[in-house]
Amino acid sequence: MRFSPAMLQRAAKAVDKYALYVPTKGVFPKEFKVASTASGVKKNGVLDLGVILNTNKSRPSSAAAVFTTNKFKAAPVLLSRGVLEASHGKGVDAIVVNSGCANSVTGDVGLADGQAMLEMVNQNIGKDNATLVMSTGVIGQRLKLDKIQGGINDIFKKNKFGTDFSSWLGLAKSINTTDTFPKLVSSKFTLPNGKEYTLTGIAKGAGMICPNMATLLGFVLTDLPIESATLQKMLRFATSRSFNCISVDGDMSTNDTICMIANGAIDTPVINESSPEYQQVQQQVTEFAQRLAQLVVRDGEGSTKFVTVNVQNALKFDDAKIIAESISNSMLVKTALYGQDANWGRILCAIGYAKLNDLKSLDVNKINVSFVTTDDSQPRELKLVVNGVPNLDVDEARASEILALNDLEVLVDLGTGNEEAQFWTCDLSHEYVTINGDYRS
Amino acid sequence: MRFSPAMLQRAAKAVDKYALYVPTKGVFPKEFKVASTASGVKKNGVLDLGVILNTNKSRPSSAAAVFTTNKFKAAPVLLSRGVLEASHGKGVDAIVVNSGCANSVTGDVGLADGQAMLEMVNQNIGKDNATLVMSTGVIGQRLKLDKIQGGINDIFKKNKFGTDFSSWLGLAKSINTTDTFPKLVSSKFTLPNGKEYTLTGIAKGAGMICPNMATLLGFVLTDLPIESATLQKMLRFATSRSFNCISVDGDMSTNDTICMIANGAIDTPVINESSPEYQQVQQQVTEFAQRLAQLVVRDGEGSTKFVTVNVQNALKFDDAKIIAESISNSMLVKTALYGQDANWGRILCAIGYAKLNDLKSLDVNKINVSFVTTDDSQPRELKLVVNGVPNLDVDEARASEILALNDLEVLVDLGTGNEEAQFWTCDLSHEYVTINGDYRS
Repeated sequence: MRFSPAMLQRAAKAVDKYALYVPTKGVFPKEFKVASTASGVKKNGVLDLGVILNTNKSRPSSAAAVFTTNKFKAAPVLLSRGVLEASHGKGVDAIVVNSGCANSVTGDVGLADGQAMLEMVNQNIGKDNATLVMSTGVIGQRLKLDKIQGGINDIFKKNKFGTDFSSWLGLAKSINTTDTFPKLVSSKFTLPNGKEYTLTGIAKGAGMICPNMATLLGFVLTDLPIESATLQKMLRFATSRSFNCISVDGDMSTNDTICMIANGAIDTPVINESSPEYQQVQQQVTEFAQRLAQLVVRDGEGSTKFVTVNVQNALKFDDAKIIAESISNSMLVKTALYGQDANWGRILCAIGYAKLNDLKSLDVNKINVSFVTTDDSQPRELKLVVNGVPNLDVDEARASEILALNDLEVLVDLGTGNEEAQFWTCDLSHEYVTINGDYRS
Repeated sequence: MRFSPAMLQRAAKAVDKYALYVPTKGVFPKEFKVASTASGVKKNGVLDLGVILNTNKSRPSSAAAVFTTNKFKAAPVLLSRGVLEASHGKGVDAIVVNSGCANSVTGDVGLADGQAMLEMVNQNIGKDNATLVMSTGVIGQRLKLDKIQGGINDIFKKNKFGTDFSSWLGLAKSINTTDTFPKLVSSKFTLPNGKEYTLTGIAKGAGMICPNMATLLGFVLTDLPIESATLQKMLRFATSRSFNCISVDGDMSTNDTICMIANGAIDTPVINESSPEYQQVQQQVTEFAQRLAQLVVRDGEGSTKFVTVNVQNALKFDDAKIIAESISNSMLVKTALYGQDANWGRILCAIGYAKLNDLKSLDVNKINVSFVTTDDSQPRELKLVVNGVPNLDVDEARASEILALNDLEVLVDLGTGNEEAQFWTCDLSHEYVTINGDYRS
């Protein structure tokens, strides 16, 4: 073991993530109500079942989703995709989600179980094809339908729904698996019409995209009216710049789902691609999705650092993103960050093996690599590589200061164009190996 | 920490890799001689410079090489590529290689330094364009040319060359960086003409493809006569099934080079693509390269296991290899192997996100996943997933036995065709994080 005790102490420095990242209040979109309960799928009376209901009767909602591209798709992914396809024009009025069991690699029985689960909610709200279903937890195990049924009955019979902060926080808690804190984000925005709209989102992920304790899930709800196909396009754009720009270990699960419902409870014209507000709304949704996705990285298993990888001045956006992803997924970069080592060589190397679409995106003589501090200290930028040449006079003391931070940025300037992309990643620690090397438990 | 003391003890079980994998004798091709010395680039009088000389005067040698595809190519890679391109018909008579400094990310000065290094050898052998140069070690630092020059003088003036086992072992040692043992393999084979030929190879890699302590290097020497273009094709084929099928951390360095010289010292007709022996020779070279490449994985940093990932019955070879690579590089699979956890979910997941060329290569209802023992115990195969369905009656005691082995196989049967591919990987341990999280030292 070559880690000094002081290093280990620094790396293990406890951060109270719950206090830092869990809000104590929020704003919530009109005409949504949410509930959660402990169905018994998880042990010890922990919340493990949630329902989101759209209560707006004035017009049909719009719903959209981005699903995992893993070829092993869990039953709820296949079912929700079908519900969504059949819902256009009629909207989606409920999402039912459980944690503790992912209902994945469960074959036809799993499909029947998931179908039964969503139909229980359809019956309670008196509608057909109005409910999306999501599951997260252990894979390869059957859903305990009796417990899920008991939980859904409990929620509807006892009318556990609420619109207040604690109801939303309970919902966020009910979808957690190995997460160390619930992920709840909300914000308001105003369009040029002077009206105020609300976005609320919850997510889970334990900071990793893990097939054992699946999954990455994210839900975004708004009271803005958005046309269905526009919403789908917008969510896909936002996801490509948020949930698809995070890395804990680079693995992608069988259940990953990001979905969004716009219920149009605020009575203004429906946004579509030709609306003048379209760009503004897309930007709002994207930034919101980024806030939510970043919380997933913050909760990275065993992680001690939150690192923004910022690739600037690229010829193509896609190549900037491919380079950001290559750096973010590199085990050697992640361990160097954990070890607080200003190892520009590993960063250059990860850039060099990224599989670019356009080789002209990278000119090895134009590249600049820096670390950037996230606090107020100066200088903010520490140059490690300048125009492809290592900076041999790098201020090692300043490097140590920046690398000791919990939040920092790796800045790559490609110098070949004007595009940029960000990725958010965390370090690779002893604790990560401990958590993931453990027996299923 | 959730690892039990017993688990940690098992995982840390000391394996004397030097005793297991370093030979005590060997066979060596005719008309090659090798030398090594301690030039002082590395401290403490450790061997750090080697020269391989072809002494066959009866006909020109053939040389071939496969270089890193990383866009940041070290100076010796660029130089050797140029030497090789200009060598056709005239052959290559020397390889000079140093460890301790990779001469990478060193710009024009690095090119001049590498050129000076290879010219020193050219002068000593009295030829032009006859020497390949390779370097491995820390990147971003200038080569200490005075020390290299002293070392080359030492080798030639004192005629340190030899053809015996200890000369070859010394050469293997001289290219090591963080390797824990020298990698030297040799074997003889007989062609239908009744003549016997020899293959000898050395490699280094520290079991990782690491840009800080670069690099993966491999040299294969034979006294069989092979036509230049045929040798290049053969080496590319062999590399695609050996050195390009190993994974420690998935990172690819700036200096990776595999090269081969066939000096034709055995006086038989030159092998080309239309020779009847062509297929047999290609198979010999491929299997030989696999033996050498596997030693690199055996020396994986911090690794406790050597795992063969065997993907069978695939529709396409390329897709079988892509799936084997995806499993081999998954951090979640690697940590599960370290934790001796029969986690088929992570294996399926890595299969599911592999980016296949032909989607028909994977049918989620036909897939079988097993662990296979490498010792004589029975049953050899433990089925985890059968036709896409998890085997819920898996014998956990047997799983523990197999997972406790240092060598084991992950067998994936895709059931979609007749192609197969292998990858060789190791586990991801606490020690890996310790080694790679450490400050440059």
